[in-house]
Amino acid sequence: MKKELQDLRDKMQEYGIDAYMIPTGDFHGSEYVGDYFKCRDYISGFDGSAGTLIVTADEAGLWTDGRYFIQASDQLAGSGIELKKMGQPDVPSIADYLADQLGEGQTLGYDGRVVMASAENALKQRLRGKQVRIVSDKDLVGELWTDRPPLSRRPAWPLPVIYAGRRRSNKIALIRQELRRKQADYLLLASLTDICWLLNVRGDDIAYTPVVLSYLLMDQEKVCWYVQKCVPRELTYELKDDGVEIRDYESIYDDVAALPEGSVLYYDMGTVNSRLQSRIPASVKRMVGPNPTEMPKAVKNPVEVANFRKAHIKDGVAVTRFIYWLKQNVKDGVDGKPITEISAAEYLEGLREKQARYVEPSFAPIIAYREHGAICHYSATEESNAVLKPESFVLADTGGHYLEGTTDITRTISLGPLSHKEKEMYTLVLRGHINLAAARFLKGCTGQSLDSLARTPLWDRGLDYDHGTGHGVGFLMGVHEGPNSFRYRKPAGGGRECVFEEGMVTSDEPGIYLEGEFGVRIENLIVCRQADDSGFGDFLSFDTLTMVPYDRDAILPEMLTEKERRWLNAYHSVVYDTISPHLDPEEKDWLRQETREL
Amino acid sequence: MKKELQDLRDKMQEYGIDAYMIPTGDFHGSEYVGDYFKCRDYISGFDGSAGTLIVTADEAGLWTDGRYFIQASDQLAGSGIELKKMGQPDVPSIADYLADQLGEGQTLGYDGRVVMASAENALKQRLRGKQVRIVSDKDLVGELWTDRPPLSRRPAWPLPVIYAGRRRSNKIALIRQELRRKQADYLLLASLTDICWLLNVRGDDIAYTPVVLSYLLMDQEKVCWYVQKCVPRELTYELKDDGVEIRDYESIYDDVAALPEGSVLYYDMGTVNSRLQSRIPASVKRMVGPNPTEMPKAVKNPVEVANFRKAHIKDGVAVTRFIYWLKQNVKDGVDGKPITEISAAEYLEGLREKQARYVEPSFAPIIAYREHGAICHYSATEESNAVLKPESFVLADTGGHYLEGTTDITRTISLGPLSHKEKEMYTLVLRGHINLAAARFLKGCTGQSLDSLARTPLWDRGLDYDHGTGHGVGFLMGVHEGPNSFRYRKPAGGGRECVFEEGMVTSDEPGIYLEGEFGVRIENLIVCRQADDSGFGDFLSFDTLTMVPYDRDAILPEMLTEKERRWLNAYHSVVYDTISPHLDPEEKDWLRQETREL
Repeated sequence: MKKELQDLRDKMQEYGIDAYMIPTGDFHGSEYVGDYFKCRDYISGFDGSAGTLIVTADEAGLWTDGRYFIQASDQLAGSGIELKKMGQPDVPSIADYLADQLGEGQTLGYDGRVVMASAENALKQRLRGKQVRIVSDKDLVGELWTDRPPLSRRPAWPLPVIYAGRRRSNKIALIRQELRRKQADYLLLASLTDICWLLNVRGDDIAYTPVVLSYLLMDQEKVCWYVQKCVPRELTYELKDDGVEIRDYESIYDDVAALPEGSVLYYDMGTVNSRLQSRIPASVKRMVGPNPTEMPKAVKNPVEVANFRKAHIKDGVAVTRFIYWLKQNVKDGVDGKPITEISAAEYLEGLREKQARYVEPSFAPIIAYREHGAICHYSATEESNAVLKPESFVLADTGGHYLEGTTDITRTISLGPLSHKEKEMYTLVLRGHINLAAARFLKGCTGQSLDSLARTPLWDRGLDYDHGTGHGVGFLMGVHEGPNSFRYRKPAGGGRECVFEEGMVTSDEPGIYLEGEFGVRIENLIVCRQADDSGFGDFLSFDTLTMVPYDRDAILPEMLTEKERRWLNAYHSVVYDTISPHLDPEEKDWLRQETREL
Repeated sequence: MKKELQDLRDKMQEYGIDAYMIPTGDFHGSEYVGDYFKCRDYISGFDGSAGTLIVTADEAGLWTDGRYFIQASDQLAGSGIELKKMGQPDVPSIADYLADQLGEGQTLGYDGRVVMASAENALKQRLRGKQVRIVSDKDLVGELWTDRPPLSRRPAWPLPVIYAGRRRSNKIALIRQELRRKQADYLLLASLTDICWLLNVRGDDIAYTPVVLSYLLMDQEKVCWYVQKCVPRELTYELKDDGVEIRDYESIYDDVAALPEGSVLYYDMGTVNSRLQSRIPASVKRMVGPNPTEMPKAVKNPVEVANFRKAHIKDGVAVTRFIYWLKQNVKDGVDGKPITEISAAEYLEGLREKQARYVEPSFAPIIAYREHGAICHYSATEESNAVLKPESFVLADTGGHYLEGTTDITRTISLGPLSHKEKEMYTLVLRGHINLAAARFLKGCTGQSLDSLARTPLWDRGLDYDHGTGHGVGFLMGVHEGPNSFRYRKPAGGGRECVFEEGMVTSDEPGIYLEGEFGVRIENLIVCRQADDSGFGDFLSFDTLTMVPYDRDAILPEMLTEKERRWLNAYHSVVYDTISPHLDPEEKDWLRQETREL
């Protein structure tokens, strides 16, 4: 059994805690978390991006989703921790498990700062009537973890208005107007991307998400930004000019506790942590809902859209070069060494780094050869790292942050001769991808109304992919951003659906995964825009931002409808015109061949 | 000004009422209402199926929707009542209008029996803080209307289990189980279709909807059916055997008022009227939500589905004969008289009446020639009644109730040479209609996930139809039945979305309406069923119930995809095999031509 697990059990006994829960989360409900927050990893050894550990005196279980079943199973071997495969019929939900394990008078513990208010509410609901005591003010792992990395406090940096497209003062005024409309006195923001959007700042506190660890509390008079000592002097002055006062990160707890009696506080329970919520005085009226920053952040302004296009040209040059390089060198390798999944990812990162105003990857790259491509969220490790050979597919899902915006692209690349089945699957996925990208639709459509367009070619043959067709994308921010998405199921529980609006940027990424064989996914980012007025209503359509060719050798042209073929040829023609001026002569020749009319 | 309007104003003055509201509704929230309930028609003269009249001392307005703008405008001319076109930008909602009109201390009146609890709640919400007094226990129109038709009390009749497919006792046991699950003691049902489904009874109290005016109150021990003296002795005995006690229709009010303290009453606020709700004692706990009968009513059992198929063969024979007759006789007319919209409808009704176990039309027939077809819910009147000519389209949307189920079918029929535009529009609508009918999809899809399949061919050209693509259909019951439907917008406000389940019957009816030119709508009923298991999830698809050929002359085959063409040919082949054995030789020959491979 892992020593860390035993130490945790000793601590639990010391505090009289019968079950201790360690979710994956920071104090802000972020998707990715900084090293300081990797408590679940520390105790369990499982380092995937999602998972919750629950420890009792006799049992320990790690709940994670389908993306991580294989990895978690490996990493948990011999740890004394059982893998709980979420979604499998015999695996209880975390709440059900706790309700079952905890008897009357027993105690559940967790660090209330990493459990969001909405999650705590749901848990308490489930445990209602069970007389379970909750201890949420102890960070047991923090007490054990002697070499814990410090909380990140990298310098924050301003995002100039030439990138952000809208002044900070203007955004603050907009949110104040929204608060008046809601008749709320105060807004508490804990979501890092929402704070950074509002203040036109960015930072480096979380890998892949250029945000600053901070809170924000504002009313009609003041904006207080609760942040660690990481704000350069110049930015401090700039913020002050816009009426933003800087306070200490930790003092948000006291300031929330001191809110005036009878005032109305608006906040989002999904990103305000439960301990912070517990500090709101009973005399303050709570008004909960989505952050008012969410929609203006999702609906990119014209400057952001124009910048997004620029970022995608640079990214398109890097990825197009990468594909050419891969196809040229896969047979013989480079410098006498074969190309592997990891070395390919490093090469692509190098190409991105050469582009102007490149910041960092927008997520951990997925370069997955052949059967690895069938593992939906595969990430190569030193052990799994496959050598690429001149046959079958490699799936490359990568992305970058530029000052001009964020990219996220998947290409499935043929490295040699393909089987008919490989081509057939590629073409089915491509057809769905095109049908969504080419959609023209009436205002009022949500992602749920449009998702089936991408799935129909697969569904017609009884095939499917077990993930959404697309997610919203932030502007130099989270690569996964709500509320826009493409999913055919109605949102579960508290999930919200949003109507598409001009300026929303979303991924379009259908796929197919044949276990043990290969996987295909094709992904572009698309931006919603007004279509011509036809007199039959307010039509919208999408413009494709991503500028990288599809794999010509993988397409069976006879399977495409005329409309799909036309769309494909038009796209390839734009890709050539846009990307080729930035390429070397031999790359250019190759791109001309790849993008010629089909 | 209409005398009835003046009389109403006098009554309002007598009772001190400043604004009086007359919705279209019976005591049960029914879609269609009996003659007794046509108060709005009596006062205003407008006899469409939907509309709300509001009268103040100085103003009178009639709110209705787009279907009725033309008809209402005609019928209200000179009445002193202004037409309020719902949905137009300058027309306030009814609640906003009342909030604007009524000052402090003023009085709003309506008959609480015809305003459902949910509608009253919404209205009170809007008027909150306005100090408006509400008088809801006066039926002012009832006091004025001397020759008011009596409440219908036609004999109820049992629906044998060979049609209903499930015994009454079995249904009652199912609902009792559901009440236990919800921890509710009593269920109050006011929705007539839900009551008739539960009791396996039908009646003739409402045109087009074979139901019995009644209420029902049940717990784990008893089922009380509150009904007028219209239950034949034999049915009474049958009901008694299943533990159903018959009580007087009006006594529901007293019985609800006498519910035991501390008990839990479950009911649906959309179909329980506000006066009945007001009788629930404060000591009774209210649990509100959709009726537990709704889902088992919508998910047809295998016997109902098999019966539905039989009904559709008979209906298909009638409608196929009708199309043949129309095409044969449109040029010369019949018995020296031209065929008109009304005479055509009568002829079709005659053909349906010849079919075994035909009950009645399932809604008022729409036979709309040429430009009348562009009026979405056109219903021919003596004034509008057009003569059919051997050119362009006639749109025929009709349906019937049989003991084996309910039909609803639209065919757009060419009566002579068509323009290219007419054929193009027909083919686009047909493509959408086929794409939905042919869909294969994963369990979890709602009507919102699938609607775009029917619209894409039109949306691609910037065209659309301003109505849902389909509605659920009852079994010898309401032709419009929830909760299943096809709509691309997420349901507004309290609207609910349901996931498709095997056995749900829904219409598939895209259209296009070119004002002043012509309209095309094509409608079949489709039943959801399991598709083969492919290993990629739980797939569903639709079987088409309706058995009538499309109009061959109106199709541009080159516009169809290969998949659409194959579906069309397969459908036509089944139509021929199913319907032709019931036709005369010359009809059969014609059908063979109509359904030959395209």
